[in-house]
Amino acid sequence: MAKRGEKTNLRGRAGRMQGGRGSGRATKGGVRLWGRHAVQAALMNPARIHLKLWATPEGVESLDGELPAGFPLEYAGPDDLARLVARDAPHQGLVLDCEPLEDLHLADVLEADPVRPLVVLDQVTDPHNVGAIMRSAAAFEAAALITQDRHAPPEGGVLGKAASGALEVLPWVRVVNLARALEDIAEAGYWRIGLAGEAETDFAAALPTGPVALVLGAEGEGLRQNIAAHCDALARLPMGTAIESLNVSNAAAVALYAVRSRTPEE
Amino acid sequence: MAKRGEKTNLRGRAGRMQGGRGSGRATKGGVRLWGRHAVQAALMNPARIHLKLWATPEGVESLDGELPAGFPLEYAGPDDLARLVARDAPHQGLVLDCEPLEDLHLADVLEADPVRPLVVLDQVTDPHNVGAIMRSAAAFEAAALITQDRHAPPEGGVLGKAASGALEVLPWVRVVNLARALEDIAEAGYWRIGLAGEAETDFAAALPTGPVALVLGAEGEGLRQNIAAHCDALARLPMGTAIESLNVSNAAAVALYAVRSRTPEE
Repeated sequence: MAKRGEKTNLRGRAGRMQGGRGSGRATKGGVRLWGRHAVQAALMNPARIHLKLWATPEGVESLDGELPAGFPLEYAGPDDLARLVARDAPHQGLVLDCEPLEDLHLADVLEADPVRPLVVLDQVTDPHNVGAIMRSAAAFEAAALITQDRHAPPEGGVLGKAASGALEVLPWVRVVNLARALEDIAEAGYWRIGLAGEAETDFAAALPTGPVALVLGAEGEGLRQNIAAHCDALARLPMGTAIESLNVSNAAAVALYAVRSRTPEE
Repeated sequence: MAKRGEKTNLRGRAGRMQGGRGSGRATKGGVRLWGRHAVQAALMNPARIHLKLWATPEGVESLDGELPAGFPLEYAGPDDLARLVARDAPHQGLVLDCEPLEDLHLADVLEADPVRPLVVLDQVTDPHNVGAIMRSAAAFEAAALITQDRHAPPEGGVLGKAASGALEVLPWVRVVNLARALEDIAEAGYWRIGLAGEAETDFAAALPTGPVALVLGAEGEGLRQNIAAHCDALARLPMGTAIESLNVSNAAAVALYAVRSRTPEE
């Protein structure tokens, strides 16, 4: 992403102009994003096909970079934009319809730099949480996010807003069978650590020096038994007893930080 | 809090039964809480005065413990409860009207165990974020949360839900003048570390062995200049360049973990 103040050409790949103002949702099969960071990152992502941008003049002004000539832009008021997005969603004057990103395969990300951890989510369904986890995963330079198709939110505006641009930069693999994916991850040399509040091992103590896959479950329910059984270790973050658990996105951020801060391999 | 399955007497201090079903907000001056963890913790907090519980039978069943005889409980359907809470808020069958907690003074918390950090928030106004920070602060056994009266959300349902019970256990001090509070905190022997993305010092390197106060600002804006000037050190979390910043609650969780994981004082 361009640094603040640095003006870059935003990419224009707009093809068809489908859907329409007031429709309240994206074109069939399309993805609607909103918020400055999410839209800015999508506009700068060469892999993203843009269909249409609805924006206030202030929204366009807030972008780093210039929209290319002919970009399918329609100016609209804040209230019009509010009707295009999820209820009460803070659109910040920018709503972008675009195509979903191309599907990634697990094999594509298992060849990443092994210093970078993988983040595997088991049935984390709240798009705010998944988006926030993507943001932290991108910030701490994780190699990829891996979720199960049936038990994860789709690419969309709420997730994109919480991800604050990370949706465009963090590889996201959706698999059909998470247990099978964990087997492939192990075969690729990753040590799979499941976060579990009831585990006895301290997370930092469970961290190996080699490649790591962090496995996190939904709040309350935790990891499903079969997913926990596919981890090489279960570990807990060093918490007191006053609170039952951390929010899952906060737990992910802490674990990612701990991985990044561990002593490098000799 | 009682462990799962352990049945304890919930506290009943119900006094007046004011407000009413369908009013959509708490009694004037009261606080309305919802969600299982938030309501459970409020019911078990001896310092909390309860006015009325609206609940579904399943909501009451989900509580650990028995409501005392005569507790002002009114059964209601999920849709009725939805009208009592913030739009789309997940009430989980439990809505509790209660009195706000007594005000705490800064001096009350400056005598806490100095191993436990303080968390100071500068203009973090989103109740989801402040609640999530309270949850992590309680989990990592911070001594207190300190916010500025004018620039922080009040005690309320959205914050309480995100705090997941931490509102009842984490001391929360609201001060009029945050810069002045930081002076008092320094006098009490705390080393004040401000989190700032633009800082050059790595957070872990900036951590002393003694008492620490973590100072976090709003996302995007960061710390106000005068607040940054009242910190002993400004430091950054070790992030890559793909993402501008962490979500403030995730940054707080990471910093609290780092404080908890540091080498103990010799």
